[in-house]
Parts: sequence; structure tokens; C-alpha cells
Amino acid sequence: MTLAELPSMDVASRASALRSGFEEAGIDALLVTRLPNVRYLTGFTGSAGMLLVGPDELVFVTDGRYAEQAADQLGAAGIEARVEIGVTQAAQRDALQGAAAGIARLGLEAHGVTWAQQREFASEWFTNAELVPTLQLVEQRRLVKEAAEVARIAAACAIADEALAVVAPRLPDGPAEREVALWLELEMRQRGASGVSFDPIVASGPNGAKPHARPSNRRIEPGELLVLDFGCVVDGYCSDMTRTVSVGDPGASGSRLYDVVRAAQQAGREAVRAGVACADVDRACREVVEAAGLGDAFVHATGHGVGLEIHEAPRVAATARDTLAAGSVVTVEPGVYVRGVGGVRIEDTVVVLPAGNDDGCQPLTAFPKDLVL
Amino acid sequence: MTLAELPSMDVASRASALRSGFEEAGIDALLVTRLPNVRYLTGFTGSAGMLLVGPDELVFVTDGRYAEQAADQLGAAGIEARVEIGVTQAAQRDALQGAAAGIARLGLEAHGVTWAQQREFASEWFTNAELVPTLQLVEQRRLVKEAAEVARIAAACAIADEALAVVAPRLPDGPAEREVALWLELEMRQRGASGVSFDPIVASGPNGAKPHARPSNRRIEPGELLVLDFGCVVDGYCSDMTRTVSVGDPGASGSRLYDVVRAAQQAGREAVRAGVACADVDRACREVVEAAGLGDAFVHATGHGVGLEIHEAPRVAATARDTLAAGSVVTVEPGVYVRGVGGVRIEDTVVVLPAGNDDGCQPLTAFPKDLVL
Repeated sequence: MTLAELPSMDVASRASALRSGFEEAGIDALLVTRLPNVRYLTGFTGSAGMLLVGPDELVFVTDGRYAEQAADQLGAAGIEARVEIGVTQAAQRDALQGAAAGIARLGLEAHGVTWAQQREFASEWFTNAELVPTLQLVEQRRLVKEAAEVARIAAACAIADEALAVVAPRLPDGPAEREVALWLELEMRQRGASGVSFDPIVASGPNGAKPHARPSNRRIEPGELLVLDFGCVVDGYCSDMTRTVSVGDPGASGSRLYDVVRAAQQAGREAVRAGVACADVDRACREVVEAAGLGDAFVHATGHGVGLEIHEAPRVAATARDTLAAGSVVTVEPGVYVRGVGGVRIEDTVVVLPAGNDDGCQPLTAFPKDLVL
Repeated sequence: MTLAELPSMDVASRASALRSGFEEAGIDALLVTRLPNVRYLTGFTGSAGMLLVGPDELVFVTDGRYAEQAADQLGAAGIEARVEIGVTQAAQRDALQGAAAGIARLGLEAHGVTWAQQREFASEWFTNAELVPTLQLVEQRRLVKEAAEVARIAAACAIADEALAVVAPRLPDGPAEREVALWLELEMRQRGASGVSFDPIVASGPNGAKPHARPSNRRIEPGELLVLDFGCVVDGYCSDMTRTVSVGDPGASGSRLYDVVRAAQQAGREAVRAGVACADVDRACREVVEAAGLGDAFVHATGHGVGLEIHEAPRVAATARDTLAAGSVVTVEPGVYVRGVGGVRIEDTVVVLPAGNDDGCQPLTAFPKDLVL
């Protein structure tokens, strides 16, 4: 499938689906302030905008920079909304005050407003409404991806696969980490990605001991573990993949770390299935690492949801309470890190399949998992 | 000055300077949660970490991914802090609870915590303390840049200048907007920038009517106005510059828009001076645009501060209350936008000079302002 053939999304139906949860949440309307949620509900991609989902209407407020873009994007998505352009904060306040005038219980995304905003909303913007903190109302809708959303994530994953296929053969030349990061980004963009989903991690040798190392000027040496963690964005949707490789033989200790993480990642992937607790996927990975005596070196959670955000619900962690649903897209990415030596992490982005399939999930990232280049 | 010669910053003295404002803010300690502020006070560049600035000690809390990086970066900056690694949220809570045990009035950055966090802090983390909302405490310290900070911004500005000098001669070939954006980014990175300070805006012809357009596959045509707004990051510090150019003669109406904005930008730059109200700089720009009958087409503020964040204090806007101080770094970027036709924006990043200089400010971006290529 080329990027031009991506199936269209049914953005316009999402707000009414969201409204069906208002009664349970104890609200009459929701002011959507988290930008990924605004995008999900309207198609708007700008950096500033708020959406009031009222009982009967949608009111979208943004500033003068986005007047034209808002009209274009909401129109293209088929959103029937009143679009209010407020060049100043005061004008935006007035527009939302008017729109919220009759609303008794106004939901605010508690993770999507700062404490300062909430205080200002309560004391100046919405003095007649009860402000109700809501958690994850839109995120819960986003948890299960439509097929057209999965297609975008899959396209982003395929681009990342292709980029690594081009870049991996250049690693024996001994490039600097920063060069490799730039190559990956370039290859992904040239294949139609709008950008990276996060700054690529290219961590060689001892740098790999930092799970989130930034690419440095260090050159890649033969026999070292090299962690490559990167992804891109296609039509707003992210991909995420990690591979660990070595130019030549990494020696017995490196190979052993690799084998443990690879087995853990396999166990995690096999545990992913509709109806399974996220915590159980984490446990499946962690047990393999712990059995190898490396439990203390696995210093992060097993994975996270991927979609319009590179990190979104559900968390795949020991303390997570979510259960996997068909259509959820998550990463499975165990890793071990040894200070002064290096690290190994292996990660796929997978989509949870409907119950009744032999496999619980379908990997969307597919680059081979060979340690030695 | 090469990037290797950047002067070192005195990060270690910043926390005690910050403490001197605690009494006026009515707090005994401040929990710093905004990441640019954490970086400013510690040198830590990771994506997760909190700093408790207590009366006598600093406690830095992050998660397992950043154990090594935190030790390295705080050590390199000469920060004497207790570093606590909490692999789980609960472990981080316990570490901060212990550190904040004796504190009566704990400041929370009201713009740096979500409402959800504040509610959790109040009900579970810091039940014995009074949580006091603070605004801009660290940002006010960051408002006046040290010479070593200005050197970094200047280096980022110089790299952007050089990138445009390489890319501008290629514009007559008719590249797509996306290609131009990628070239600018590449040239900046190859000169040592760690990345872009924001996704470059390359908006040709009618696309220029959207102040924050995203680069498209549209090719650049002769005689059109082309808005190029871009910047990069050097050691965490941002640059920001906009130029508007035309391949060949843009015609009388395009030239007129350009001349108005250029005069407005000049007026704005000349208004920048230590002790001048930011609102007066905005007015100086806006009066020129209004006198030309284009006031309604200038749909945004005149500028913003630049530093560790691409948008930071002070705002240079009609409603701003800040006054410029020597050492502040701000943009001056008037623009006009005409739907269906296009836009013109011209922007420099400037540093406010100490009183007594003939000039009120020194531009850090220096690329020439010729409309016609």
C-alpha cells in the first residue's frame, strides 16, 4: 500500500461516540484541551486549539494563526463545528464562555490542563459551571484503533523497516552515532514520513547502558552492542522499533545478553492477546530476564500504546491495570543495561488481533532480529 | 567561535539564586517539574525528572532509564544533589515524600503540573504540606541570559544563517516545500546543531497565508512569496529566524506587502531596548502595519523570548506586561497574511544590550533581507 492509498478515517463520528460516556463521567460537556485528543476528534493538526464537546454542538476555538487551517482541516474531516477564532486570550475566553453558558457540569481533562489553567478556568472563565476532572475519556476511545488508524501505524512501521534496511549495511564503515541517527531520519522522510516520532536513539558500546541516550559523535566500533530505537510519523500516527546489532562478533557476554532479551521479547509477544492483562505481558518478559539473573538490569516497563502519540495508553507495565483489547497497538520492548558495558533492547510495535485468531497479535515492525551484521 | 569553544555555563549557582525568591513567593521549597527548568537548574537533559529545591539541599528524582545519565550530567554541571532513582511511580513518590517531610509550604509550578498531578500530590504525595501554586519562578531567572547562554543562542543563529545561505541558491530550481524544509534541517545538523528548534515552516504562494503552515509537496514557483521560518538547537538553546523571499519579481502587491513588513520589523527592532515595555515593541511594529491599512492581516503577536525553549518569557505582545531587560533574548517577527494570496513574515532573534549602548539590541540572526532572489 502506498501512502496515497491510505484508507480514509471516520473522524466525524468520534465526538458522538465520546458523548455516550458523558453520563457515566458525570458531565454535560467536555472541554478537550490535549492536542492529540483535539486532533482525534477534529482532524486539526495545529499547535493550539480547544474543542468544546457540548450536548448538541461542537465549538472549536483557536487563534488567528490557524484561522484558515482550522477551516480547511475540520471541513476536510466533515466535522460540523462552530469555529471561533480568538486572536487574543480574552477573545478565546469570551467565545468559550458563550458556548458553555448553559452547561452545569463541565468536564476538564485533568491530564490536559495545567493547575494554572484550571485555576483560571474556575475563577474567570467558567464561574457558573462545576468543573469536573476527567481522566482518559478521549484516550479510552483512542485505545482501540480503527482499521484506518492501524493502516497508518503499519505504514509508519514499514517505512522504519525500510530505513533500517538501507542504513544497516553502512554500519561496518564506522559512522558516528549522530550520522546514523540522521540517516535513519532521512530515509524515513524520503519515504513519505512527515517526521520522526521521537529523536532516534543510536547508542553504541557503553552508551547503550543508558536506555534513552542521545546520539553522540562516538563512532561505531566492531564487536560492540549497538542499540537503534527509532520511528516515524505517517498522517499523525507513530511507529516505534528497536533493534540491537553488532558489527562482527560481540563476544560471549554480549551474545548472552542478547539471547536473554530476545527470548524475553518473544515471550512478551506471545503473551499479547485480547483479554490479557497488560501486567501479565510485562510479567512474561520480566520472568525470562529474571530467570537469567538480570532482573535488576531491566529498568523500565515492557511497553506502551502507540498511535497519535508515541507513548499513549495502555501502559504495558507491572503496575498497569489495563487489559488488552483487539485493535490496541502496543510495543513489546524488554531491555537490559549494564553500566560501562552496554545495553540490549529489542522492540516491536504490534496490533492486538480479535479473539479467535491463532496468534494473539500481529507485529507491524518486521525488520529481522539478527544480532551480528 | 566553533561549537567546541562554547564557554562553560555556571549551572551550579542557579539553584541558590532561585532560593532567594522563595520568601517573596511564600514557599519553603519548590518542586520543579517543568523539564526546561529542571535542565536549567541541573544540566539534566532527559525526558523525565523532578527537582526538589529545598531550603538546604537539592533532591533529584528520575526513573531507571536515566540513572546513569543523571549521575553523569549532574556531576558534569557540578551540582551537589541527592539523586534518587525510582523505577516505579511509587518509588519516586516515596523518595520525594521523604525529602519533603519537614516542609510546610511546598511550591508547585502551576504551569508545570497538570491538574491531575496536583490533585494526586495533594491527596497522596504531600498530605502534610500546603501546596502553593507558583508562576514563572524559574522562568523569571531564565529571562536574563548569562553570556554563555547568549553564546549558545548566537551559535544556533549563526548555523541557521549558514544553512539558508546554502539553501537559498537552490530555490530557483523549483523544489517542493518539504524538500526545502529537509535541506534546511540537514544543513543545520551537519553544522553541529543537535536538531531543529521546531519543524521548519516553508510556505509558498497561498500556503504563506497560514502563519504556521506545514511544508507540503507544493513546488516553489517564480514570482511567489515564500516564507521560511526555522531554527536549530545548540547545547539545548534555540534559534528562530524568518525570511520571506521570491524567486524573481513578486509583482507590485507582493512587493508592497514586503516593504510594509520590513519597515515594521525595522521599527520593532529599533524599539527593543533595556527598560522598554514589551507592549511598546509590539506597538511599534503594529503601528507601521496599521498605517499601511493592513492591521487586520497582522494576526499574531510581535515576538517571544528564546532560550532553552523556542517560546519562553517574555511575550512581545500588545497585552504583555513584561519590560525588557539587558540580556533578554527575544524575536521581532511581524507578519501579514492574505487568504488566497500569501504571506510575509520577517523575524530576527535579538539580544537586549545593557543600557548605555547606542543600539538597544544586537541581532543574532544576520541573513540579508532581500526579497528577490
